[in-house]
Amino acid sequence: MEHTFHIMQKGYTVCPENWGMVNESALYYRFYYVYGGSAWVYKDGRIMPLRAGYLYIFPVMNPYSLWHDPRHPLDVLWLHVEMAMAAFPELVCLKVNRGEVAEHLLEGMRGIVEKPGYGGELTQLFSVFLTVLNEEVPFREAESGRMQRVLKYMETRIGESVKVQELADFSGMERSYFSRKFKEVFRMPPLQYLMAMKMSMAARCLLQGGSVGQAAEAVGYADEKAFSRAFKAYMEMPPGKYKKIHSGGHVI
Amino acid sequence: MEHTFHIMQKGYTVCPENWGMVNESALYYRFYYVYGGSAWVYKDGRIMPLRAGYLYIFPVMNPYSLWHDPRHPLDVLWLHVEMAMAAFPELVCLKVNRGEVAEHLLEGMRGIVEKPGYGGELTQLFSVFLTVLNEEVPFREAESGRMQRVLKYMETRIGESVKVQELADFSGMERSYFSRKFKEVFRMPPLQYLMAMKMSMAARCLLQGGSVGQAAEAVGYADEKAFSRAFKAYMEMPPGKYKKIHSGGHVI
Repeated sequence: MEHTFHIMQKGYTVCPENWGMVNESALYYRFYYVYGGSAWVYKDGRIMPLRAGYLYIFPVMNPYSLWHDPRHPLDVLWLHVEMAMAAFPELVCLKVNRGEVAEHLLEGMRGIVEKPGYGGELTQLFSVFLTVLNEEVPFREAESGRMQRVLKYMETRIGESVKVQELADFSGMERSYFSRKFKEVFRMPPLQYLMAMKMSMAARCLLQGGSVGQAAEAVGYADEKAFSRAFKAYMEMPPGKYKKIHSGGHVI
Repeated sequence: MEHTFHIMQKGYTVCPENWGMVNESALYYRFYYVYGGSAWVYKDGRIMPLRAGYLYIFPVMNPYSLWHDPRHPLDVLWLHVEMAMAAFPELVCLKVNRGEVAEHLLEGMRGIVEKPGYGGELTQLFSVFLTVLNEEVPFREAESGRMQRVLKYMETRIGESVKVQELADFSGMERSYFSRKFKEVFRMPPLQYLMAMKMSMAARCLLQGGSVGQAAEAVGYADEKAFSRAFKAYMEMPPGKYKKIHSGGHVI
């Protein structure tokens, strides 16, 4: 099976004291394979500890918070991976048993993840890992090819005001059928998804050093105040504060 | 690093009672990762036990014998791999320590080697394995690109009578320089290598069900008796006997 993905960042890290993130809504998947430490995730109103020997996949554009006890810092193999957005719509939490193929692949990745010149090898191991993982957590890649194209289209039009009818036309589906299908695949209506995408892209822009005005413009807001209101409604804090908090922490 | 290879056959096997081979001279590398059993290799006048936790790479066109104690059959992950012939000119015997990346890769391969539909994944893991292995046992791929082409040429001309001058011309080297270089890379003079290649190909032909006459013809012998003499000199038994012995055994 072929998977389309791109490993953006990666490492095997004992996290620094000030590690953590609040209402993080990333445009990529975080893959964490936990070795130790006391850390937690908050998502959808629930707190869950991150346990050693477990694999976590934090979904795309679906906010969560992460933090740890600085006296017992999180010890983790981590990968930021861009791939089909609907692959893992929910937070994945999976026990990896010793001696399983998945464990050997994760250990193999850990052994080379920080080695210079091993990027290609890491990609190969991760590709095999996805195939093996797919047996445990079937992910939804094939079924949503058409919807993936809709997301790509959304991305290219992120600075403009896109209407549902336009997306339906692009997808070649009748409008109400398109909305139903979209919700089935992405678990939210198209315009809510578009808003989440805008806010995630704005957050990325802020973390890359952009001003609030630049972030607003990048995702199609002429009015900075309207942008700040929307951002706050989604991220639960104004853009300036978000930038300050996240730029200070290490976003692993 | 890119490696050119092709996994021809593979398995994770407790060998059958009658397993073994005498004066085997293969056109591919045998990679063995031993899990248990009592088995031995005979090569260049020495007997060596095959030990659990070790990786063995049996060279190409360089005869060896393998056998085991049927009461303690060899338990092995094995791969027959076609790749640059000069990569491992000698028998490689390498301890694989627990927890090393190499061990995780071998264990990962063992976990999928018999799984239908995982051929691509096995190839990917093996490719990463070669890169990691290359740190321990540097193999000679890059330096002999020109010589690899000479081997390919030899193969295409196996049914005809090739002279050293022709090979030197093909390689674009002066004849005596070519002979010296060839010997440096392959540890034997060109015509001796050509003979070994012929006999290995003839052996393969026999094992695939060919008659002695067909094997002789395939490697350019018009006279079956001359072929049988050459074969016996190389394999230490006449072709008919070789076919009988090897067709009975399981050539893992």
